[in-house]
Amino acid sequence: MSQTTTLTFDALTALICEIFVKAGFSPRAAGSLAATIAAGERDACKSHGVYRIEGCLRTVKAGKVAPAAEPAVEDEGGAIIRVDAANGFSGPAFDLGAPLAAERAKKLGVAALVINRCTHFSALWPEIETLTGMGVAALAMCPSYATVAPAGGAKPLLGTNPIAFGWPRPGGNPYVFDFATSVAARGEIELYRRAGRQLPEGWGLDAEGRPTTDPAEALAGAMLPFGGHKGSAISTMVELLAGAMIGDLTSAEALDYLGTTALAPHHGELILAFSPERFAAGRRGDPFARAEVLFEAIAGQGARLPSQRRFTARAKAMAEGIVLSAEEMALMERLREGGLDAVA
Amino acid sequence: MSQTTTLTFDALTALICEIFVKAGFSPRAAGSLAATIAAGERDACKSHGVYRIEGCLRTVKAGKVAPAAEPAVEDEGGAIIRVDAANGFSGPAFDLGAPLAAERAKKLGVAALVINRCTHFSALWPEIETLTGMGVAALAMCPSYATVAPAGGAKPLLGTNPIAFGWPRPGGNPYVFDFATSVAARGEIELYRRAGRQLPEGWGLDAEGRPTTDPAEALAGAMLPFGGHKGSAISTMVELLAGAMIGDLTSAEALDYLGTTALAPHHGELILAFSPERFAAGRRGDPFARAEVLFEAIAGQGARLPSQRRFTARAKAMAEGIVLSAEEMALMERLREGGLDAVA
Repeated sequence: MSQTTTLTFDALTALICEIFVKAGFSPRAAGSLAATIAAGERDACKSHGVYRIEGCLRTVKAGKVAPAAEPAVEDEGGAIIRVDAANGFSGPAFDLGAPLAAERAKKLGVAALVINRCTHFSALWPEIETLTGMGVAALAMCPSYATVAPAGGAKPLLGTNPIAFGWPRPGGNPYVFDFATSVAARGEIELYRRAGRQLPEGWGLDAEGRPTTDPAEALAGAMLPFGGHKGSAISTMVELLAGAMIGDLTSAEALDYLGTTALAPHHGELILAFSPERFAAGRRGDPFARAEVLFEAIAGQGARLPSQRRFTARAKAMAEGIVLSAEEMALMERLREGGLDAVA
Repeated sequence: MSQTTTLTFDALTALICEIFVKAGFSPRAAGSLAATIAAGERDACKSHGVYRIEGCLRTVKAGKVAPAAEPAVEDEGGAIIRVDAANGFSGPAFDLGAPLAAERAKKLGVAALVINRCTHFSALWPEIETLTGMGVAALAMCPSYATVAPAGGAKPLLGTNPIAFGWPRPGGNPYVFDFATSVAARGEIELYRRAGRQLPEGWGLDAEGRPTTDPAEALAGAMLPFGGHKGSAISTMVELLAGAMIGDLTSAEALDYLGTTALAPHHGELILAFSPERFAAGRRGDPFARAEVLFEAIAGQGARLPSQRRFTARAKAMAEGIVLSAEEMALMERLREGGLDAVA
């Protein structure tokens, strides 16, 4: 067994931050991305952890994202808080807009945080949890790359188009879900390919638009939406609301713009924030207490609330530290030493 | 072949309206419900057509809905337009609030229409199409009755919890989807039972929470959400946002309140309205024109946009009239003559 290193969450965040600063990120961007990646490791979401650092740097090196961009808020006083990420990463733009959106939701009932011209590389749950921490419920969505065929179609057009939702739970972790609207993530199909296994039925189409269970054929063809025509409709809604409506790229346009799915996608993001207190206005009592009754009824019949695996991993990591492999430590050391020149 | 009667949309609406007036509905409620039911027939959605009239009257007769209730708007000038349906049907409350919500969305960017204390018997697409007709995109959701088990669970807790979305298409029918977040509607399972057919895998659980393909067992047990844990999470979100958050009944509470799924459910409804012009603010050009590119790409690869079957039926009905069976005409005649006394 190879040697491992155990770091606290803060120490891992500081180490990743150093890497990003060395690569020319603004302190604001470096801190924001480092915290998000460290949170991925903390929550045992390896696919959103240390592994992502080099992908971020690769997108910078390709000239497709500005690591020192300064995001700017546009606020007309209505229910839309817009942040122009100025071709930077979404993280610092989100950090700037989130408190304003939460405050506006508490004032008006509902508010929208729009992030334009950003590169998004992470899961949506870190953003959702920031907002639930501010006492609002939140629903987030964004397009990605055209890799998913609409139900009944034959060719990639929609993105994996994640949607995520969170509800604050006083005194505990929030209710949070975050998933792709494709039946599987592209990385899962890649894992089947490497393992030489066939895909389950309904995951993909080959390049001619025929159903396939061959992972290589599906990667060369198209993925399929979850839940048939229903998931396909939801994914289309994501393209409309978080692409066309907010004046940013659809998944087809994002793929045209970058020309590859190997770099983090450039696009926009839409996050709705709701104030449960404002909506309930005292009717039927405290909305948070009423939600707990629902959660207890779900868990009480043996169904799991989403994100529980993450929260369990988080509690362990915060108590015992985050365990990193020798390879992960070597990767970070290489990037901290070499900056963008060290990017493979 | 039995005799059929062909009526214009307006004539059918007037006939249904007469039935409701005879049964003690306010003119506002009678007109609203009649138009919605006639629209169901017009669009060949038989399950939301003439068949629903008696169900509405039955709920009135049971004392569970006030047919002459006067809905009242509460508007604090923020992003929430609230209409208290005062235990009446949702239709007249929606009619009152929809123009205000559309106007507020155009002013602030996004607005929420909340309907409280209503009985909802129809699909959500008539409401969605009213809002797209006012130039806004809209997302609607409501709880129903606890008949669906959460993914991984064993007992009915969630409702069939429909969600519906619409996007205006200038000069044509809107983009609209409207579906239950259960894998199938309860009526579909009933049709399998009557036909003596087994259900597909994954539709239902028996009363002990075990997977079953026997429709009678599933009706006595629980339905399942569409798309596994993803659909289950979306359905839970509907309970939170359109139940706990708006201070109205969850699906479990709605079933407790009425004690049966045979009457139309009493609950609340949440509808979000978005102004694409306000969101886009000129970025990347006209959001409606950009959406058309997406729709063309979907249809161009042989995938169907949702609701096309309805729109085709609608065009035919508006040109040639709505064909009703002798049984449907007899049902309406019986109810028009006898009012609530004629309800079976």
